[in-house]
Parts: sequence; structure tokens; C-alpha cells
Amino acid sequence: MKNIAILGSSGSIGRSALEVVRAFPGKFRVAALSVNSDISALKKQIKEFRPGKVCVADPRAAFKLKNELGSKTRVLCGKEGLMEIAGDGGSRLVVMAITGSAALDPLLGAIKSSKEIALANKEALVMAGDLLMRLAKKYRAQIRPVDSEQSAIWQSLGSQSRSALRRVYLTASGGPLREVPRSRFKDVTLEKVLRHPRWKMGRKITVDSATLMNKGLELLEAMFLFGLKPDEIKVLVHPEALIHSMVEFSDGVVMAQLSVADMRIPIQYALSYPERFPNKLAGINFCNPGKMHFLEPDLDKFPSLRLAYYAARELGTLPAVMNAANEICVDLFLNKKIEFLEIPEIVEKVMRRHKNVRPAGLSSAICADAWAREEALAAAGRI
Amino acid sequence: MKNIAILGSSGSIGRSALEVVRAFPGKFRVAALSVNSDISALKKQIKEFRPGKVCVADPRAAFKLKNELGSKTRVLCGKEGLMEIAGDGGSRLVVMAITGSAALDPLLGAIKSSKEIALANKEALVMAGDLLMRLAKKYRAQIRPVDSEQSAIWQSLGSQSRSALRRVYLTASGGPLREVPRSRFKDVTLEKVLRHPRWKMGRKITVDSATLMNKGLELLEAMFLFGLKPDEIKVLVHPEALIHSMVEFSDGVVMAQLSVADMRIPIQYALSYPERFPNKLAGINFCNPGKMHFLEPDLDKFPSLRLAYYAARELGTLPAVMNAANEICVDLFLNKKIEFLEIPEIVEKVMRRHKNVRPAGLSSAICADAWAREEALAAAGRI
Repeated sequence: MKNIAILGSSGSIGRSALEVVRAFPGKFRVAALSVNSDISALKKQIKEFRPGKVCVADPRAAFKLKNELGSKTRVLCGKEGLMEIAGDGGSRLVVMAITGSAALDPLLGAIKSSKEIALANKEALVMAGDLLMRLAKKYRAQIRPVDSEQSAIWQSLGSQSRSALRRVYLTASGGPLREVPRSRFKDVTLEKVLRHPRWKMGRKITVDSATLMNKGLELLEAMFLFGLKPDEIKVLVHPEALIHSMVEFSDGVVMAQLSVADMRIPIQYALSYPERFPNKLAGINFCNPGKMHFLEPDLDKFPSLRLAYYAARELGTLPAVMNAANEICVDLFLNKKIEFLEIPEIVEKVMRRHKNVRPAGLSSAICADAWAREEALAAAGRI
Repeated sequence: MKNIAILGSSGSIGRSALEVVRAFPGKFRVAALSVNSDISALKKQIKEFRPGKVCVADPRAAFKLKNELGSKTRVLCGKEGLMEIAGDGGSRLVVMAITGSAALDPLLGAIKSSKEIALANKEALVMAGDLLMRLAKKYRAQIRPVDSEQSAIWQSLGSQSRSALRRVYLTASGGPLREVPRSRFKDVTLEKVLRHPRWKMGRKITVDSATLMNKGLELLEAMFLFGLKPDEIKVLVHPEALIHSMVEFSDGVVMAQLSVADMRIPIQYALSYPERFPNKLAGINFCNPGKMHFLEPDLDKFPSLRLAYYAARELGTLPAVMNAANEICVDLFLNKKIEFLEIPEIVEKVMRRHKNVRPAGLSSAICADAWAREEALAAAGRI
């Protein structure tokens, strides 16, 4: 029985992680949960999974919840509460499903406590991947990717060492705009973008999938997770999204990981590793539709991916800047304050203005992140 | 430095194995070679690789060769010579590239000497797979498949245990007649059959690829090599032949092994395992032609595959009978003595007449093999 803490349990990944726990009552026990603000979701989860500790962001909400729950569940709050859950001995594995840079500190806490970490957060790696991976090695924390592409690379690598790798094929569905010509991008609406063909995901990541910035962030993630150079990672558009990524070894062999598009599959493997637990999730039907396609990404049509390759080559604080500027732009687009085409334009403008700091320490990454947010808002004419 | 014996060194697999050895002079040394009758090929190989021992089938040829070579190379002959090479301590790994049932005895010898065995021979497993795998376990001999499909299954399994398997997808190019309608099979010529679209192979295996009997034999091989039931193996037609087979795990994950069609790749891995040695062989170009197709095999069009599934369910001596009858029929077809459509007809007739012996010991398999050859010749009106 493995004790698990889930940070960010009301989000899409958090809920999927709880579904995995629910499917294996003899294998996993929920030791702790945290949510940002969705207290009603948390209450239902507490009732079902009976964690020893929970954490909510707001102290007043925590106080109110404490009074309702009685003494069986300890209620923590804020960053300190997150740090306690991430670092304490009550759980062996931490599912890091908090989005954005808010995951940085609890992730560091989990690493320093030598936890098994199922990492769903992208931003922490993009901002401080080098540092995080170095610390993970030092503290013998195991970082296991949850993102389907990174999980596919991890699984395709298997027990082979990094030195046997020739390159990684990072596959991309191509997003909702794959078949829309660049000349029509000026008319792209939010509604069109939010209709993703393969994965049901949150709104932020769906926009990132439309610009291919999502793949750009994954490029950076993969570099840090697997110790790769940018030119060792080749993005491959694969619209059917059955192959979630591939690894080419130095002997010419390619290993690929495939599954239906269901996040419970990579989450379960991050929890069950090195074992595989039998579940009832469907396999792939290879004969229907019976085809897989592969094509090069169009970097002129999707400049965000070019920006990400640039950031990946430059490193320093530039990836953090790109990520932060992109977050602001996506938020403005979701609120219909800027056009779709302005997203990469503003990100590029902010990246050009940035004075890169190399190597990026934690504080310089956090500074760069804050600077880039302000710059992006200014460039969009919002401050 | 690993000492290697190659049995059947003048054939297609044997020569590819020597190319692998040539590419890694610091890793492998040829300790012994054997050929059936191609003495001139053997002489060139002796000159280049300087093995300590060689074996040829014919005693007179062996005597002549001994006089030519002098004392640096021991020259053995016949079955005894093969047994000595397979079993002696001069090599740690034996490449078993002898075709047909002639491989059975030396394979048993290598197993009983606890060798690493790179197995390219299909027939031995089909005839006596159960026994061979049991003995391999007992003597801690490692049987590593060389056949591209079996190697793909082996690599896709990785370090996961057999119990984590849900099913295996055994891929098939579909052979040279995939797009020829069944109604035209009566006009199929030898020349048409020998034009295989993907792999350059020997004539026997190319005919087997046209009838899909090749896939049927691989079905049996896979059952024995990986301890599978016939219904756990699904044949999948994949004309591009880039995915060489796949494994579906119990958690819904599919792992696939891909490479260009070059036998040196699986041979090298069987030699280098568990490591991978960097070579200069090309990777896959996924964007050209940029497509992969998958379809169900047509069992009405290719009755040989249905026969193989039947033999796989019945086991006993029936697989040996099917294999032997097929060998005779393919030989008759290659010599233009029977029509293409008669191949599965005669094999089925012989299988129907056979009184199955279960479980098949070595001697009953050998008897069944001999019986089936005679029956097949009789059914073809050749005796």
C-alpha cells in the first residue's frame, strides 16, 4: 500500500489521479490533498478518500473547513501548508498537479524529502529544470513524468541508459489549427481554438496546443528530464495522437509508446512504476481508422515552436521569460483582450527585450518570470 | 570481447551477423563458423575472421579444407562437428542461423551448454518449442530472437514481466500478394511471388511471406518464446513494415519497436544485449512517405494463417506436421511442380490426416516431421 499526496486535487490531473487511486483500493491510499479554491470539490474528496491532511490556499477558507470537518482531518493553508504536505513523511509519492510557478516551492520540498514525484506541472521544469534535476539527483528523489509525451519518452527509454539515445521524437497532434491555413489565422476565434481534436484539456493548455507553444514547453521539459540537447529532440506532427512520443537509439532502433488519449494511463504508470497494474481502460483499435500520419511541423505557421527552440538553445532565464509572457498572452486571449496572432508576437517581443541571465538560479528565474509578465501586459497595452 | 560461434555463416543471416562483427572489432571475436556446402564463402570468412574452428557438412570437403588451411584452424565435419561448436567453451554466444530441422540438435547442444543463443531458426521452435524453452530455463541458456518480429516483441517487453502482458500485435507486411485479389491467385507465378515489397530474403521465406505461412510460423515461435496463448497474439497487416511488432500491457499501454528493414539491426541487438552499440545504420524517415497503415489479415484469402492458428491451438505434433508439409510444398512450388494455390491445400490435407501426439516430445516431433514430408509429396502426386 503506497501513501500518496495529491497537490492540486480538484484540477483535471488531480481528479484523474484520484480515479486511479479509486480503481486500486488495495494499492494506493490518499494521505493528503490540496486545492487552491475549489472547497466543495475538496469536501467530496475528503469524504471519499479520508486523507489525514488537506490544504487550501486561503486561511479563512481553511478555518471554516476545519470547523466543519472536526478532528479527523488536519486542515492546513497557504504555501506553508503545501510545503508541509509535500515534504512530510506521511506520503511516499507526491502527485504534483498544481499548475504554474506556484508548484516550484512544494516541488523543491518534495525533492528535498527524497519523494517519488509524479510531475504534471510544466512550468517548474521550464523555469528551473537544471536546478531541479540536479537536486533530484542529489536527494535521490525520483521525478516521474505524467505528461503523456514525457511519459512516452520515459517508457520508451526503458532500462537503457541515456548514452544509448540518438534522438527523441516528440509527437504533436498539431492542435485545432493544423488544417487552417496561416492566411486565415487572423480570423481565428477563441471558440475555434477551444475545439481540440484529440485531448480534452484545460483552456490554457488547449490554446497552447493551438499555437504549438505546448510542444515548445514540452521540448524544454524533455531536455531537462532526460538530459537532452535541443537538436536531439525532433517535433513530429502525428494527428492521430496514438504514438505519444518515440526514442531512437544509437543502433537505429526506435521504441514508441502508444495508447488511447486518456490521462489516467500515464498517471497510473507514474504511480505503479516499475510495475504495471491491469486496468479496464481500452486498448488501441489499430484497424479503425487504420492509419497514422507523420509530418514536419510548420515553423512559419507556428512561430511559438521556433521561439521555444531558440529559448532551448539559449537557456538561462529565457525559458522562464517565454513561459511567463505566454501565460499572460493566453490569459488575455482567453478573455478576448488580444487576437490569436498577437500571442506569439508579444511573446517574441518580450523575449527580445530580455537580458538573459545564465545559468538561471531559482531567484533569477523567479525575477525573470515576474518581469516578463509585466512586460507582456505592457506590450499588450494592458498597463 | 565476446567470443561468438556462427552456425550457418554463408546464409543471409550468417553473413549479416559477420557484418555486425566486422563493424565492432573491439566487441566481438569469431570463435567458430559452420557452413553446409558453400566452402568458397567459408574460405573467405576464415581469411578475414580467423576462427579457431570451422565445420562443414561433408567429411570429404572437410578433409580437403584441412589440407589447404594448415594447423591454425581446426576443421570439423557433419553433425558431430556442429555439436562440438555449439557446445564447447570457446564461445559464449552462438548465432543459430542454420535453417530447417537440422538446427534442432546443435540448438539443444547450445542450450545444454548454457550459451547465449541468437536464434534465427524458426523450425526448431515450431517443432519442439515447449521442450526447448523448458530446457533453456533449466540450463539457464538465454534464447534471444533474431527474427525482426520476435526481436520487436522482446524489445517491447523490455524489463516488464510476462504477467504484465495483455496481448501481442504481430505485424505483417502482407507479402507480395496483399493487393492481388483472391480470384487472381490461380494465375500467380513464381516470379510474381519472389518480388517481395519490403525485405530482401531467401526464396523459401519469400514464398512463405506470400502465403502468410511465414506469419503463421512466427505465431508459433512467439507463443513458445514468450509463453503466450494463440488468442493473445493478434496478426496485424502493416504494409510499410516499419513497426516490427508491438506489445500491449495490462494497463492499456502499447510499446512498439520500429526500424528500417535491415536484419543487421536485430542481429546486432541479440549480440550486444543488454547494451546497444552505436552503428551507422540509418534511422527511420517518418515524414517520407509519412503514413503507416494497419488492417486485419484476410484469413479467407490466406488460409495458411488460419491453419497456423489451428495448429497453435492444438499443439502436440501438429505444428511440426504443418511446417514440414509446408516446406515440401514450397520446394515443389519453387521448382514449378505445383501451383501457388496448392500450397495451403496440400498442407491442410496433410494436417487433416495427421493423428496428433500430445505433448510432442523430440522424437515424436521428428517422426511427425518425416511423416508429413512423405504425405505432402504423396498428396502432390510426386511419389
